[in-house]
Amino acid sequence: MQNLEQLIGTIRPLDRAAMDAAARRQAQLAKPPGSLGRLEELSIQLAGITGQLHNDLAKKQLLVFAADNGVVAEGVASTPQIVTLQQTINLTRCKTGAAVLAARFGCGVTVCDMGVKIPVNDPAVLDRRIAAGTGNIAAGPAMTRAQAEQAILTGAQIAMEADAALLGIGEMGIGNTSTSSAVLAALLDVDVEAVTGRGGGLTDDAFVHKKEVIRRALAVNQPDPSDPVDVLAKVGGFDLAAMCGAFLGAAAARRPVVIDGFISVVAALCAARLCPAAREYLIPSHASCEAGYALAMEALKLRPMLLLDMRLGEGSGCPLAFQILEAACAVMDHMATFDQAGIDDSYLDQLREN
Amino acid sequence: MQNLEQLIGTIRPLDRAAMDAAARRQAQLAKPPGSLGRLEELSIQLAGITGQLHNDLAKKQLLVFAADNGVVAEGVASTPQIVTLQQTINLTRCKTGAAVLAARFGCGVTVCDMGVKIPVNDPAVLDRRIAAGTGNIAAGPAMTRAQAEQAILTGAQIAMEADAALLGIGEMGIGNTSTSSAVLAALLDVDVEAVTGRGGGLTDDAFVHKKEVIRRALAVNQPDPSDPVDVLAKVGGFDLAAMCGAFLGAAAARRPVVIDGFISVVAALCAARLCPAAREYLIPSHASCEAGYALAMEALKLRPMLLLDMRLGEGSGCPLAFQILEAACAVMDHMATFDQAGIDDSYLDQLREN
Repeated sequence: MQNLEQLIGTIRPLDRAAMDAAARRQAQLAKPPGSLGRLEELSIQLAGITGQLHNDLAKKQLLVFAADNGVVAEGVASTPQIVTLQQTINLTRCKTGAAVLAARFGCGVTVCDMGVKIPVNDPAVLDRRIAAGTGNIAAGPAMTRAQAEQAILTGAQIAMEADAALLGIGEMGIGNTSTSSAVLAALLDVDVEAVTGRGGGLTDDAFVHKKEVIRRALAVNQPDPSDPVDVLAKVGGFDLAAMCGAFLGAAAARRPVVIDGFISVVAALCAARLCPAAREYLIPSHASCEAGYALAMEALKLRPMLLLDMRLGEGSGCPLAFQILEAACAVMDHMATFDQAGIDDSYLDQLREN
Repeated sequence: MQNLEQLIGTIRPLDRAAMDAAARRQAQLAKPPGSLGRLEELSIQLAGITGQLHNDLAKKQLLVFAADNGVVAEGVASTPQIVTLQQTINLTRCKTGAAVLAARFGCGVTVCDMGVKIPVNDPAVLDRRIAAGTGNIAAGPAMTRAQAEQAILTGAQIAMEADAALLGIGEMGIGNTSTSSAVLAALLDVDVEAVTGRGGGLTDDAFVHKKEVIRRALAVNQPDPSDPVDVLAKVGGFDLAAMCGAFLGAAAARRPVVIDGFISVVAALCAARLCPAAREYLIPSHASCEAGYALAMEALKLRPMLLLDMRLGEGSGCPLAFQILEAACAVMDHMATFDQAGIDDSYLDQLREN
């Protein structure tokens, strides 16, 4: 993939004929029409994505993009920056929340260093470093436009090359709720107040300060809301840009792709703004507690499927959403049709005689 | 178990010491405090239920109670009564929605004939028949008080004897959204309008008629809201009463027990009214679309975990909730503590030098 326009050009709408066939099949299954709700809708969406009525989702992969964010210099995070590096390594050692959940449900984890401050330099981590962390968005742009495009294309390539039928997109990067809030405030043209939360757990004073820093970042950089690459370059991060690219890459490869929490949904919104057709490949997971999540979901016209009060990140909401997708496939593949569900009249007569 | 008082007398509060230990363990795990939300809460609840910090939920069982409801004579259901029998058999043949989902996630299914109109008489179905369906509640009581107690004790016994660490409670019985609405209206002393939905899918006229029938059932029977057994006997069903018993039996056996949709949550509310301590053993699953579900959940002080727009019944929401519980156990069992998550200083120094 040479450039972003080429990537976007390869993303096609869903296969409407396959979706119609899937909807017809759902109507034949022995249940009150629509009574399996979103499991039915997911099976139809999956058909549209892959072109197949029956889908094998056994191969599932969580893609986690790690990077450091210069804005932590402003004291916006409750966790020291070194934790980005620690947890990036721990993700590959099955020690973190998302890694444990992925292992429990049989999905692989790809961890990619997009720009952790200290190079991760670990054989279990993909090295796609763009720089040693981003610039401090409160003082200037996070990165150049060329770097943002490079991060997007890198994320896309990782998603396209993943050996999996189903992808989930997560992140590790101290400070990335601040960058995500800044990106979302810019894209939706809403006040910072509406899209900013306490991240890992800030005190009242630190929370007020975080919002001031994000406001300053927007004032200093003046990102163009109609240009998601400009927004990502000025107030985003390498993690966010790569995730945005991963959503685009999944769509380009016609693979269903699951959104995790707040940071993930902001990246997904960037992808959908860059390419509206990519929106149809998105599958929500849990409702993040972080402020802004609901607004980003609303902008994407999506509703969460899981209410678990989670706000860990790392892609931790994806493995459970994968299980819901597996449930949707099981219904499509194995439920009896009305014809198959009918009990033979002679057997019923026999029962009546007893 | 000789009688209901004995059953209720065996139900104990949760183990607070085990819950405290579980909460301390969660606080040691390497994540922002509370960031795994309800997965943390579930692990603490599980510890309280079993007395153990680590729980093995590999053995999971869906208990489905089948019965016919005399009220279908009033034309309150969109599906013919014979479907109770058909789907009861199909549940054992892995043909129905809940059976397919249970199989997909490795949980067994126990199907129990509590009083299907035509005896199911199938070796795969437990025969615990009380009568050939209930009486028409629009004209008189569904059953005698003795039959209601028998149904409750039967459900309790099945739950206590189940060879499983985790239970889910479902049903099959055409007409049972009508009986459930009647029971809920009586227990909460609210208008029928607030607790009645379209069940399998009624037309506008049939829906108005259904509400009239439920109002008549309440007027004719005058159930005592302070006496759940009276309510179940007068306007309930064998399925509802057995499910109520199964929730009590699970609590008596100190097993976590998952609520499915509307009918299941009404049975759970009956159980909690009979024995408030039983409430602590309840675990919600999905938000049913059926009117009344939300009110029953509110009365139980519970929130759903899954937003899937499902309204199939049969226990179909339980297998996915089981996966969430498995996730909670995986976090408790396998996540690194802060001590374990720390990357060795000498390794970090080495990375810094690179």
